[in-house]
Amino acid sequence: MGRGLRTLKLVIAYDGTDYCGWQIQPNGPTIQQELTDAVEAVTGEATAPVGSGRTDSGVHALGQVAHLKTASMLEPTVLQRALNAQLPDAISIRELTEASPGFDALRDARSKRYRYVFHDGSLPDVFSRRYCWTVHKRLDDKVMQSEARTVLGTHDFRCFETQWPNRASSVRTVTGCTVTRMGDFVCVDVEANGFLYNMVRSIAGTLYDVGRGRWPPGRMAQVLACGDRGLAGPTAPAKGLFLVFVEYA
Amino acid sequence: MGRGLRTLKLVIAYDGTDYCGWQIQPNGPTIQQELTDAVEAVTGEATAPVGSGRTDSGVHALGQVAHLKTASMLEPTVLQRALNAQLPDAISIRELTEASPGFDALRDARSKRYRYVFHDGSLPDVFSRRYCWTVHKRLDDKVMQSEARTVLGTHDFRCFETQWPNRASSVRTVTGCTVTRMGDFVCVDVEANGFLYNMVRSIAGTLYDVGRGRWPPGRMAQVLACGDRGLAGPTAPAKGLFLVFVEYA
Repeated sequence: MGRGLRTLKLVIAYDGTDYCGWQIQPNGPTIQQELTDAVEAVTGEATAPVGSGRTDSGVHALGQVAHLKTASMLEPTVLQRALNAQLPDAISIRELTEASPGFDALRDARSKRYRYVFHDGSLPDVFSRRYCWTVHKRLDDKVMQSEARTVLGTHDFRCFETQWPNRASSVRTVTGCTVTRMGDFVCVDVEANGFLYNMVRSIAGTLYDVGRGRWPPGRMAQVLACGDRGLAGPTAPAKGLFLVFVEYA
Repeated sequence: MGRGLRTLKLVIAYDGTDYCGWQIQPNGPTIQQELTDAVEAVTGEATAPVGSGRTDSGVHALGQVAHLKTASMLEPTVLQRALNAQLPDAISIRELTEASPGFDALRDARSKRYRYVFHDGSLPDVFSRRYCWTVHKRLDDKVMQSEARTVLGTHDFRCFETQWPNRASSVRTVTGCTVTRMGDFVCVDVEANGFLYNMVRSIAGTLYDVGRGRWPPGRMAQVLACGDRGLAGPTAPAKGLFLVFVEYA
């Protein structure tokens, strides 16, 4: 970090449909690349904002958080407007504020909340299809809610990790897991101090299998106890997943 | 119409974003073409459904209506499911019912209702941007509602017609025109016995000009009295327009 650089905190929403995820990569458009390009257009600095973590190809965000080091002296509201004017309309900086110089969006993240959205109406909804998983059987959200409670607490979540093992430890603490029906939409909200690769999508897929009656209630506890990815449900499609909120100390 | 052909009434929703409008044309995908392809895949018949009217490139529908002549003996619910399985997920047949043999979706349409949607939040909404016109000034929906009443009744609407004159008469009867705010969305609902080319988008554009303060209240009456397209507001972008409902006798 150079002398005189400010640290800014950005809260970002994006429609991930047409992006290869958050993280800059050579073979396709990414959210981080678009933000980096916008920063360069506005400040002249080739600086990539650092996110709270990656989101996968096709995953959306309502509240991804990133930090940015900049020498720009623009007021936050002015800078936010200038960056938003440069960004494609699939990406929007919702908040831009001064952070303490040491703030690190990746390292300092305390917990995150994700939402997974199913649509189980008798007919698919053409206007929300990009932002949910359209399933063809009515889900039993009451049973799903009861199953969801099983993941609360500190567990070894290796059963919900794909590309295993990709972290030193697969123990995480889930502080919230709720299932809510809103008309033909069923939302699964999961909050934890950290997530393994595809963890929310695997939990959502397992709840889906119970909700559609493929497995009886109790499956979630069984999967968790065995620690076997093969017993868990499918990895639910990326388009239904939203990073909603990142909490900092 | 061949002997023994059934007439079916279809109510269709579509996301028009990636289509060159309703009507089959050589240079691009259309809703009618997708429906025709689905009908052929299911019934083997190369028959295009006949719509209540065209919708332009990029315009959406919640309730476009079409009729289809077919020799297929499939039950309506079975046929609906089979067609929906063939259709891309931007198009959905919401209802499919038997109609009287003489039913003609174009000729028999009594009135139509369209909705135009503005978004005027301080920040654009990345998840609804495909389905509204994102405007950068807060709209005065109260003034717009008062202006909207001006178009009620039978008038010569040539001031709101683009590609003029493309019909024998530009006299139409508007039976409803209301402006409703829902949070950061402002909806303009227009119901009439018929619409001229781009009429709703021109009315929406004129209400927009009054709502954002470019013109004082009373502009709508002035435009209507002069019959001059040059006085009306801009043709609002297609992505904010929905064909909501078509009424039949």
